[in-house]
Amino acid sequence: MNPMEEANIWFAEAHDEGVALTFKITNHLFSKKSAHQRIDIFETLSYGKMLVLDGRVQLTEKDEFIYHEMLVHIPMLHHPAPRRVLIIGGGDGGAAKEAVKHDVESVTVVEIDEDVVRAAKEYLPFTASAYDDPRVHLHIGDGVQFIEQSDEKYDVVLVDSTDPIGPAEMLFAGEFYGKLKRVLNPGAVVAIQAGSPWYSGDVTAKSYRLLRESFRDVRIYLAPIPTYPAGMWSFIMASDAEMGEPRPITFSTRYITDDVMRGAFALPRFLLEALEG
Amino acid sequence: MNPMEEANIWFAEAHDEGVALTFKITNHLFSKKSAHQRIDIFETLSYGKMLVLDGRVQLTEKDEFIYHEMLVHIPMLHHPAPRRVLIIGGGDGGAAKEAVKHDVESVTVVEIDEDVVRAAKEYLPFTASAYDDPRVHLHIGDGVQFIEQSDEKYDVVLVDSTDPIGPAEMLFAGEFYGKLKRVLNPGAVVAIQAGSPWYSGDVTAKSYRLLRESFRDVRIYLAPIPTYPAGMWSFIMASDAEMGEPRPITFSTRYITDDVMRGAFALPRFLLEALEG
Repeated sequence: MNPMEEANIWFAEAHDEGVALTFKITNHLFSKKSAHQRIDIFETLSYGKMLVLDGRVQLTEKDEFIYHEMLVHIPMLHHPAPRRVLIIGGGDGGAAKEAVKHDVESVTVVEIDEDVVRAAKEYLPFTASAYDDPRVHLHIGDGVQFIEQSDEKYDVVLVDSTDPIGPAEMLFAGEFYGKLKRVLNPGAVVAIQAGSPWYSGDVTAKSYRLLRESFRDVRIYLAPIPTYPAGMWSFIMASDAEMGEPRPITFSTRYITDDVMRGAFALPRFLLEALEG
Repeated sequence: MNPMEEANIWFAEAHDEGVALTFKITNHLFSKKSAHQRIDIFETLSYGKMLVLDGRVQLTEKDEFIYHEMLVHIPMLHHPAPRRVLIIGGGDGGAAKEAVKHDVESVTVVEIDEDVVRAAKEYLPFTASAYDDPRVHLHIGDGVQFIEQSDEKYDVVLVDSTDPIGPAEMLFAGEFYGKLKRVLNPGAVVAIQAGSPWYSGDVTAKSYRLLRESFRDVRIYLAPIPTYPAGMWSFIMASDAEMGEPRPITFSTRYITDDVMRGAFALPRFLLEALEG
């Protein structure tokens, strides 16, 4: 037992003013105030290594697979043949790691904060290993700017961002979804993480409405993520093509199954009401 | 602000040795060591009133509807015409409150701990209101004994118990499911809460195997419950009849929809592997 473990130190993330999820930490591996945000990496007793940005848990070694499988494979399996993938955010490499399980030509990660990538490469090899794949290209820069200036086009675009407060704010604005169009191949599928439907169903609903203004077929889906607020998370997938049924899974997974991919689109009554309201 | 709220007091439930979900409490309304367990009722800042048994959150005012709708309506809507319902446990009244939304003749609640019922009637009217319905009958006593001695038969039996440590231990044993048969009408449907598939997938898997030894059609389903460990919970439904598709929902709900009832049976790969292992 190292001194920190003996000292019984806990990290707490407040989900609102009256609820917090707390993790016993056995090591504080990395801590830096970067140009964009505060970055911490902890070794936790129960969830292995944990990445925290501005005090909010982004991923843990033990449950990241649920978030990343759901963010990546659902849109990719709703595209007939995704070859070129763009990830906005996702500097930890987790989304890229899942994307390369498909028959892709390239996966471009546009991360605003180089320090997140550096820290991930040093402490989070279970996601950052994606950068070893020659098809994965890292671009350090602002996602909105990249979209405005890029001459490339993509089949799938994944917005793997922090919540709409802080560096990711612009990624949740309506203009961003409009601008995205210029980098999309015909039939492209876009997916974003859309927050906690329990604590911020209004944010989920707002993103849904904004995407509906820009895209023809827009669908919300959910996943249970143990280390996220309320353990319940939302994603939104959008396309100008009519997305049919997903193609079957042909690679190994730990969370999704063909059934899970269908079941995830069943939304609770309270969220349907938030979407109407 | 009352003195307790000002004092900034938090209740913590450890989900394992390195994770705890904590709630700011504004009042400690009830506390008693009954003959069976420790009972606490808190007023929380974020989730309203909260019932805690032996340190484990059983329900909160704000999210109990998810657990109770899923425990009750899924089995009841898989039965063609449930008229007589037996609830083992559920002294808070939450399951009975949902059961009476159906065209039932009687709902019998068999609760081992009279103090739970008394406390619920005083502090948890949002669930205990069920006892005002003339179709709801309360029997204080041991669930196993009741099953062994009852001359009645039921169309739906719901095991709304605490976890398999403490007073509910016997409700998770294989013999219990065998004995249940004597109180079942032909075509009856049974459902149990089966723990956290994330933290105790082995418990979920064991209950599934035991029910399979006694029943012909056995199905696991899941729900996200914000105040339960990992926010992910499992239930198991079993019958000797082949259960088809659920009947459509004809009453008002806050969580389930016809789609949710279908989607809930899609199980994550890691749980499927626990079931095989």
